[in-house]
Amino acid sequence: MEVFAVEGLPEVRRGDSVAELVAERADLQDGDVVCVASTIVSKAAGRQADLADFPASERAERIADGIADIAGEEKDPRFAQAVIEASEEILTEAPFILAVTRFGHITVNAGIDRSNVPGADLLLLPEDPTDCAERIRAGLAEHLGVDVAVIVTDTSGRPFRLGQRGVALGWAGIPAARDWRGESDREGRELGATVQAVVDELAAAGNLVTGEGAGGTPVAVVRGFDFGDHAGSDELYRPEDKDVVRDALREWSHVRD
Amino acid sequence: MEVFAVEGLPEVRRGDSVAELVAERADLQDGDVVCVASTIVSKAAGRQADLADFPASERAERIADGIADIAGEEKDPRFAQAVIEASEEILTEAPFILAVTRFGHITVNAGIDRSNVPGADLLLLPEDPTDCAERIRAGLAEHLGVDVAVIVTDTSGRPFRLGQRGVALGWAGIPAARDWRGESDREGRELGATVQAVVDELAAAGNLVTGEGAGGTPVAVVRGFDFGDHAGSDELYRPEDKDVVRDALREWSHVRD
Repeated sequence: MEVFAVEGLPEVRRGDSVAELVAERADLQDGDVVCVASTIVSKAAGRQADLADFPASERAERIADGIADIAGEEKDPRFAQAVIEASEEILTEAPFILAVTRFGHITVNAGIDRSNVPGADLLLLPEDPTDCAERIRAGLAEHLGVDVAVIVTDTSGRPFRLGQRGVALGWAGIPAARDWRGESDREGRELGATVQAVVDELAAAGNLVTGEGAGGTPVAVVRGFDFGDHAGSDELYRPEDKDVVRDALREWSHVRD
Repeated sequence: MEVFAVEGLPEVRRGDSVAELVAERADLQDGDVVCVASTIVSKAAGRQADLADFPASERAERIADGIADIAGEEKDPRFAQAVIEASEEILTEAPFILAVTRFGHITVNAGIDRSNVPGADLLLLPEDPTDCAERIRAGLAEHLGVDVAVIVTDTSGRPFRLGQRGVALGWAGIPAARDWRGESDREGRELGATVQAVVDELAAAGNLVTGEGAGGTPVAVVRGFDFGDHAGSDELYRPEDKDVVRDALREWSHVRD
């Protein structure tokens, strides 16, 4: 399996076709997995915004005050308002805003970015990353005649472990996970609950060759990944009734109120 | 960057040298990252155990009863006892046992495995995965004269997202994370809190080519990963005072008691 970055992409602007920009620079093959950073997907989709677009509600003011009190960090209440509007639920208001985005991803600040956004204050995540992945996939098929998988990726922190790692937000042309249940170990014992979140692992692999900042290359290709003969699943975001941690965070926030 | 599995490893037994087994089968180069599944590290270190080794305490009986009540799953109280003994803290007793291992990893059942363990009921995680990684690294240097990095890996579930993905338990010859803080975006704005947990991403990349079950190959090599000119950090496990989720789970468990 090979992982490489697509070099030479320009700064992406509102209205650009990500598929076209990639197709001009990458010699893709059938079966490739193309990992596209959500930043450029958002830029092409016009998800740039300014703080002035988000007049702060009472709740946003309260969140900003709480973060100042607990974390000692100045947070613009309009930023908190942008997070509220991008979210289905706010799980914690302080020391940081942990939010459930409308498409199910749980991340700090609903994934709203304040760096790498020319001419705007903020960059929101794509509204529907799987729809974006499907469009890019169709565009690559059209431009290059290839059948590839596309993953719209982000980097995100996580409970229990420090640091960020690449994750999938949306995907097309590949199931989110492969299912080893029902298969056996060397002793013939059935494997336990083993569902492998391959799109997240592919996003992580891609992130190793892309990187952040000025030298960042927002598109990586994984070539030669073999999904194999397994059942697939498209469930990646934990449903609420199977999410003990979400439950605990709600109670914890409630106790603090 | 290239990722490939090391083929032809035999079933690993107590007392085997993992470094020797890998050195005989892989043509390694300086700078390679060798991802070794904790299962074979544990087997070589004699971490096989039987349920009979863990007479159930009152707490273990209570945990097994709670899991039967809440999750409707029969759990052997001796298994719960094994988890208790491998852990520094039990964060949740039901619907599953979420434990902090003595070396800081937070995972269900303290990572104790019930499949792929010939001649024993259980396989415990290595006691000190970073020490294991250092020994394997030294062994590979001795046998092949190469300077490689070694990551002892596991697959593990996580909050918010379904499915398992490869993670690092211990590492040697590479920092756990690379630090992009202080570097700038294309507009010259400083990047925010961007510390990339590269050992986890490398473990995830390796896991894409290894796999579970009878056909599983427990060692993968990542070739051509460029750490680049960044500050490194060896902090991967979140310290307690920076772990809101751990805090919330403790309160949640307390409320349920």
